[in-house]
Amino acid sequence: MSQPSDSSGAALVELAKRARAASLSLATLPEAAKNAFLDRLAEALPQKREAILAANRRDLDAGAASGLSGALLDRLRLTDARLDAMVEGIRQVSALPDPVGTVLEERTHAKGFSIRKVRVPIGVVGIIYESRPNVTVDCAILCLKSGNATILRGGKEAFHTNTVLADVIRAALEKAGITPDAVQLVPTTDRAALNILLKLDDYIHCLIPRGGEGLIRFVAENARMPVIKHYKGVCNVYLDAAADPAMALAVTVNAKCQRPSVCNAAENLVVHRALLDTVLPAVARELRAQGVELRADEPARAALAAAGVEAAAAADEDYDTEYLDRILAVKTVAGVDEAIAFVNAHGSGHSDAIVTADRTTADSFLGGVDAAAVYWNVSTRFTDGFEFGLGAEIGISTDKLHARGPMGLNELTSYKFTIVGDGQIR
Amino acid sequence: MSQPSDSSGAALVELAKRARAASLSLATLPEAAKNAFLDRLAEALPQKREAILAANRRDLDAGAASGLSGALLDRLRLTDARLDAMVEGIRQVSALPDPVGTVLEERTHAKGFSIRKVRVPIGVVGIIYESRPNVTVDCAILCLKSGNATILRGGKEAFHTNTVLADVIRAALEKAGITPDAVQLVPTTDRAALNILLKLDDYIHCLIPRGGEGLIRFVAENARMPVIKHYKGVCNVYLDAAADPAMALAVTVNAKCQRPSVCNAAENLVVHRALLDTVLPAVARELRAQGVELRADEPARAALAAAGVEAAAAADEDYDTEYLDRILAVKTVAGVDEAIAFVNAHGSGHSDAIVTADRTTADSFLGGVDAAAVYWNVSTRFTDGFEFGLGAEIGISTDKLHARGPMGLNELTSYKFTIVGDGQIR
Repeated sequence: MSQPSDSSGAALVELAKRARAASLSLATLPEAAKNAFLDRLAEALPQKREAILAANRRDLDAGAASGLSGALLDRLRLTDARLDAMVEGIRQVSALPDPVGTVLEERTHAKGFSIRKVRVPIGVVGIIYESRPNVTVDCAILCLKSGNATILRGGKEAFHTNTVLADVIRAALEKAGITPDAVQLVPTTDRAALNILLKLDDYIHCLIPRGGEGLIRFVAENARMPVIKHYKGVCNVYLDAAADPAMALAVTVNAKCQRPSVCNAAENLVVHRALLDTVLPAVARELRAQGVELRADEPARAALAAAGVEAAAAADEDYDTEYLDRILAVKTVAGVDEAIAFVNAHGSGHSDAIVTADRTTADSFLGGVDAAAVYWNVSTRFTDGFEFGLGAEIGISTDKLHARGPMGLNELTSYKFTIVGDGQIR
Repeated sequence: MSQPSDSSGAALVELAKRARAASLSLATLPEAAKNAFLDRLAEALPQKREAILAANRRDLDAGAASGLSGALLDRLRLTDARLDAMVEGIRQVSALPDPVGTVLEERTHAKGFSIRKVRVPIGVVGIIYESRPNVTVDCAILCLKSGNATILRGGKEAFHTNTVLADVIRAALEKAGITPDAVQLVPTTDRAALNILLKLDDYIHCLIPRGGEGLIRFVAENARMPVIKHYKGVCNVYLDAAADPAMALAVTVNAKCQRPSVCNAAENLVVHRALLDTVLPAVARELRAQGVELRADEPARAALAAAGVEAAAAADEDYDTEYLDRILAVKTVAGVDEAIAFVNAHGSGHSDAIVTADRTTADSFLGGVDAAAVYWNVSTRFTDGFEFGLGAEIGISTDKLHARGPMGLNELTSYKFTIVGDGQIR
């Protein structure tokens, strides 16, 4: 695959410096200018459809020739429908309120001056991602609307597609009177260049890696600047002794089967031992009917066998695995405390649910489980920026600092204090 | 200096695991239990005064023998007055409201379930610090009140003092019925152990380094978990063409001289060229009278010379230096845009002030300067947790993610979403 060869540190430092300079002007950019860019981009993408799809075919051909899997090729593929979805996403972000300038807190000091805590952009946000080219547009528009400059470092599989998309974005920025340095694509995808980028904490304020666990871990371990991670989702559903049987079935099946390939789908079913011979077989039967393979510990497996439901033996590592597939690990517990301990030990802090009719038990679970989203009698599938009312989502943070759970425009901002007085001294 | 020799990775991993386990129980600890600990500690510190001061003398003797500077020995020294200040600090934190459990946002989903964003502790917070033993108590109490487990890694100079203080803290935890693993001192101060600690991101959620720039940079560059940095404070005061002369003098002198050794003291004076022959000499004369050495660029130096005020020639690096002393670098600019560019290039994003009677100019400065605290007609010396109404302060963040500026109890928390419904599925 042909690629520009310039991965020199100097070129990357210059790119990062331009991003930093752009971020300073973006910080005070009026909302109208940001929306003008978004509107220009929504117009330009359909106009450039042929060029974008041609570049994408080039990436797809190279990917097929180099033996990319069908799943990877599907992620890489742009279609008319996917381009239309991008345009629709741009219109949605344009309609969202600009978060910058919101006064978060305000107080008056005893000496008479005011102290305001005001939302401001983070500055320069780096997005490190893999094969999905839609990330190029999604991240650029969310970062721009929140006043941030973006450095995009996509995967080599999507290089030609990303290059054309970035050109379209930068042309739309210029048409809206905004410096094109607000959105820059790193012109090389090699690991050496990435390693240089990870050290440029003088210019880049935050990294958001999006992709497989290997990439995210590499970024987290090597970056000098803060990283907001979106690790795997090992989500748990706990069926308590006091669970309503029909609700237990509905929530479990929805959490596992409605879309098994996403991070808020359930991977572990934690079941109170009192339900082994009653609720569990009914739930398991429906899961099996929907093609789910069960991997259970001994008590659950024995109960299922007695009920005539097939289940394999769970290995320890099954409880730590994000299958993203029609596989569910089943764990038996003696009560809510053991369930909480299991979830905190094996879950990934993403989304966990309890089904119970008992408020005290539910409160223990809601308080004790250390996760971004904890559900009582609701499916884990709702952890999502749109469902949570954020209007859009740049990802779901499994970190606990700065942002946790779905990240929207507000989570792409920082704040500063502005202090206004008439000569006060200390 | 005698030190425990166990810096093995296994022992540190066990320590971190105990902190993580403790953090899970702290997350749901009632405020009364936290305050019971604080009250026990406020009683115990005076009772253990002799043992604490004896351990401190041991550290001071060893420090003097190994040639520590007078300034370092002063930071290390505990006195009756400093112990009393610690106790007063504990009483203040006890009186602050518990941040955990506060509902930050709440909404109802179209399907009828509620989504609440609730403040929760971060989890395990590591404090990496140098010679001031008061950090041991200050950080432990703020972290405990906000529901976090703390791992304290102090400097070798204060090792005996810190060991006794940690023992007193842990005894007070036990008296209050809280696991003593909530506060643990790393029993060794070597760099190898620190390096191991920095990799334990499975158990430690956040690091706050407090100390010199070298230590902070080492932690930021080598840690796998998020780090909230408290870098240097290179604070700027800009005197605009429309500055009131008396206010210009008062704010500049206060920002520089009231306490030159702290991070919110001014290091650079940026002056509009229209003031070179009028306001600047008057300000400079008062600064000189208060023993401040001036280092000025050519235009300012010439104007000062004409007015008979002594000033050295500023070198480029003077504008990037945190003197923490009676030295002030003076820079001439042609207007507010150049002032903003100078502050963004040379300041450390801590605290910067403009003095002007012109609202438009002030708004440009307040919006354009990228710093934690930006002041209009107020001295930079107010950047402080108590002054900003946070009640207490664990430090002042020069980072832009999670927390910026003074960090109090709220800044030691994360949040989670709790979702409550009656069987909703997607």
